[in-house]
Amino acid sequence: MERLQRDQIYQLEKQYRISLINSLVGYKSLNLLGTISNEGITNLCIISSAFHLGANPPLLGIVIRPERAHNDTLTNIKSTGQYTLNNVLPDWYMQAHQTSASYPAGVSEFDVCGLKKLYVNGFKAPFVQQSTIRIGLELREVIDIEINGTTILIGEIVQILSDDQMIAADGTVDHVKAKTMTVAGLDSYFLPEFVGRLAYAKPGIETHELKQS
Amino acid sequence: MERLQRDQIYQLEKQYRISLINSLVGYKSLNLLGTISNEGITNLCIISSAFHLGANPPLLGIVIRPERAHNDTLTNIKSTGQYTLNNVLPDWYMQAHQTSASYPAGVSEFDVCGLKKLYVNGFKAPFVQQSTIRIGLELREVIDIEINGTTILIGEIVQILSDDQMIAADGTVDHVKAKTMTVAGLDSYFLPEFVGRLAYAKPGIETHELKQS
Repeated sequence: MERLQRDQIYQLEKQYRISLINSLVGYKSLNLLGTISNEGITNLCIISSAFHLGANPPLLGIVIRPERAHNDTLTNIKSTGQYTLNNVLPDWYMQAHQTSASYPAGVSEFDVCGLKKLYVNGFKAPFVQQSTIRIGLELREVIDIEINGTTILIGEIVQILSDDQMIAADGTVDHVKAKTMTVAGLDSYFLPEFVGRLAYAKPGIETHELKQS
Repeated sequence: MERLQRDQIYQLEKQYRISLINSLVGYKSLNLLGTISNEGITNLCIISSAFHLGANPPLLGIVIRPERAHNDTLTNIKSTGQYTLNNVLPDWYMQAHQTSASYPAGVSEFDVCGLKKLYVNGFKAPFVQQSTIRIGLELREVIDIEINGTTILIGEIVQILSDDQMIAADGTVDHVKAKTMTVAGLDSYFLPEFVGRLAYAKPGIETHELKQS
């Protein structure tokens, strides 16, 4: 077994430490974050920090980092109050990754990375046409994290746009059918295979697989 | 394409909505959260809400829900200031899932679910012996989310205990080698397969795979 303690972690070479810390927590949710400015310029960036915060009301959190060129994103979300999260598929994950490049202001990552905008009535922010699961959110809370200057945004899910037959009879999204990818660390992409679905756990009842309906 | 808007989302049958909202964001980081009380009673619960917050200082966030019986966990973390996150492997993921059952106070999920405690000098909270990637954290910030009564905990990574050869030469954790699982929704478990590792994206440079060293 290898052990690293606080002092040793801080002494690691910078890029090694970034790769290590970014990948420690395991596989992360992978989404394209779509926004639009008040001037109508769209922005798209790949993120791996979205997390489920609760189902009632339906809330997701995302982390926005100050040191990256995501300030357009934060400005857009604060000014329009809206944003979208869209899953990433193997056929075009390289295009999704390319949205992390630092393009000049005024350039839309939708255009340069070959991703198509999808708009729906009553919602300003653009969705990604090529995705199969698309979520529209309205900003509810902005939490500035003083320790490292990041910002946690909490949004309410107000739009769900899914391709046909992606949602099972009980409401669970079938991410294998949706071809949703996941990411570990900064740049390693994966496609999960189903292992099992387990029944609600109770004390004294042996853990067992859920019967699929 | 299927579309659900805010009013329709609120009108969904309760269990359907919970399953849908929980699974929308995609695959989630899967970890066992280990704590100990001031009286020495250990606690272990499976969580899918851990997220990377930053590498310098090395920070992770987790969401603690009030409505679940995880209050022991929150009490333990607040009183000792320490907790651990441990990855989940296919050989014993049913035991990990079983930690989500509501056991009476005083019962340790380590014992009833057959998971072995691992302690290291200088750190109070128990790690999971069977895991291959284990993270020790110290509590840095408690954020109460008023909208839904959840709590976001921000912790600093102060211990990394990994089985041998789980970390690549550049610092990235090899989660395929580590056999780390992921979860979608409440109860569906997956094992990812590697698709590709992409080079740092730059404008005007075609997206390409990173040469593995």
